[in-house]
Amino acid sequence: MIIGVVGLGLIGGSFCRAVKAKTRHQCLGLDQDFNVLEEALKIGAIDGILEVQELQNCDLVIVCLHPKQTISFLTEHAGDFKKGGIVIDTCGIKTAVVEAVEDPLRQNGVTFIGAHPMAGREFSGFFYSLPDLYEGASFIMTPSPDVDSEKLEVVRNLAKALGFSRIVLTDCQTHDETIAFTSQIAHVISNAYVKSPTLQNQSGFSAGSYQDLSRVAKLNEDMWTDLFLMNQQPLLFELNTVIEHLQEYRNALERQDAEGLRGLLRDGRILKENA
Amino acid sequence: MIIGVVGLGLIGGSFCRAVKAKTRHQCLGLDQDFNVLEEALKIGAIDGILEVQELQNCDLVIVCLHPKQTISFLTEHAGDFKKGGIVIDTCGIKTAVVEAVEDPLRQNGVTFIGAHPMAGREFSGFFYSLPDLYEGASFIMTPSPDVDSEKLEVVRNLAKALGFSRIVLTDCQTHDETIAFTSQIAHVISNAYVKSPTLQNQSGFSAGSYQDLSRVAKLNEDMWTDLFLMNQQPLLFELNTVIEHLQEYRNALERQDAEGLRGLLRDGRILKENA
Repeated sequence: MIIGVVGLGLIGGSFCRAVKAKTRHQCLGLDQDFNVLEEALKIGAIDGILEVQELQNCDLVIVCLHPKQTISFLTEHAGDFKKGGIVIDTCGIKTAVVEAVEDPLRQNGVTFIGAHPMAGREFSGFFYSLPDLYEGASFIMTPSPDVDSEKLEVVRNLAKALGFSRIVLTDCQTHDETIAFTSQIAHVISNAYVKSPTLQNQSGFSAGSYQDLSRVAKLNEDMWTDLFLMNQQPLLFELNTVIEHLQEYRNALERQDAEGLRGLLRDGRILKENA
Repeated sequence: MIIGVVGLGLIGGSFCRAVKAKTRHQCLGLDQDFNVLEEALKIGAIDGILEVQELQNCDLVIVCLHPKQTISFLTEHAGDFKKGGIVIDTCGIKTAVVEAVEDPLRQNGVTFIGAHPMAGREFSGFFYSLPDLYEGASFIMTPSPDVDSEKLEVVRNLAKALGFSRIVLTDCQTHDETIAFTSQIAHVISNAYVKSPTLQNQSGFSAGSYQDLSRVAKLNEDMWTDLFLMNQQPLLFELNTVIEHLQEYRNALERQDAEGLRGLLRDGRILKENA
């Protein structure tokens, strides 16, 4: 089939490279940066450049833009896609995106399936994209109940072909609540952690735990601000939860309550062991 | 020289294996678990079993016990070491250990040097020890000003021979404050993070950030309770610091303050980029 990829950053670029490396589908790329398109053509990551007026030729379009851009692109171009075609997004939050774009696309005879490839790097841009970025990762889909099962199968088969090892079907709310925990709060914590004044002494004192905890502090603040605000309630819940738990350790430590502290640490260890 | 290793867990076992794999020193092991000693002998990790009354034959003794055990072992056996010999510990906190054991050993003609190998695994015990555990790691020493420079050189050269890539000399207070940040608070945060009820949904939604943040939640609560209580003030400072910062993100999110949130995230990104 003809696959169009909109936005050739880390995620979109990796989709292009994976499609060309692992399937026989045709892959066209749309990006506002002509240098990126030229580079993608040069290294064979795309078969050709995709213009907006050619979206109607694509059987499947993968939109790899930030959440707000995804919503504006899909609502502006809702009438430009192939009737009977499929559009998926790749945003880290689903309720806000799906609610905004599903109806306009449906009214134009296009099937929209919310998707979230669970992969990334602490770098962004086409330059860092990889044909194997999705190898072994989860591919989450939040299809509405009325989505045709054959269309779902098309996307599922493509995801498997690109290297995803696990396809997860869920609803938007469960996705957003879970992602607030597995991804969003992890980024907030990492970003908050490095604000200790002790950071300046860390060189030479850093074993794995500092490296792990600080890794995702280096984030794109524009994209994550949007993601956080579009998932306000679930993220607020996680923030309140972790702050309350941290206060328990702090209070036990302040009281020099060895048994209390040991119990708190034991509870966490057991939860992790069973996770 | 003859090196004695007291406590053949992950850290001590790895010292034994590294000494035998990378140097020509003789290595003797002391442990309360005879099965561990037999296994260490069998695989050539030690040249022989070390009895307490033979401590006086060792030029260098590396004590690889938990902090409280380290203190009790060294104060009980302060008179059993070789006069003119060297004893080092491997505890994750230094002030409490050095203050307790340095004087008794000094009075017995033994040089004590506080040490902290910055390496570990999320598993414990001799079974998980590795000859290459220290490859590329930092070796921190907190020698008192009166420590003979030749003795310091003996330990430094051994550390380099065992694979440590960086030798850091500092004082106990700086060590403890820094380690509260790079290691201790990271373990508390990880242990607190997994207590969210959302943990039960994480399967299939976990990219790198969840894995990184939850890794050290699986900790030995007995050892870490001791470490935390023996480093109360620096760890309380880090706990209060990170809680205050997390509250800033929470408040910005609650107010839907995009500019405030973006600014908080940007500050963290820049700190990490420059760390």
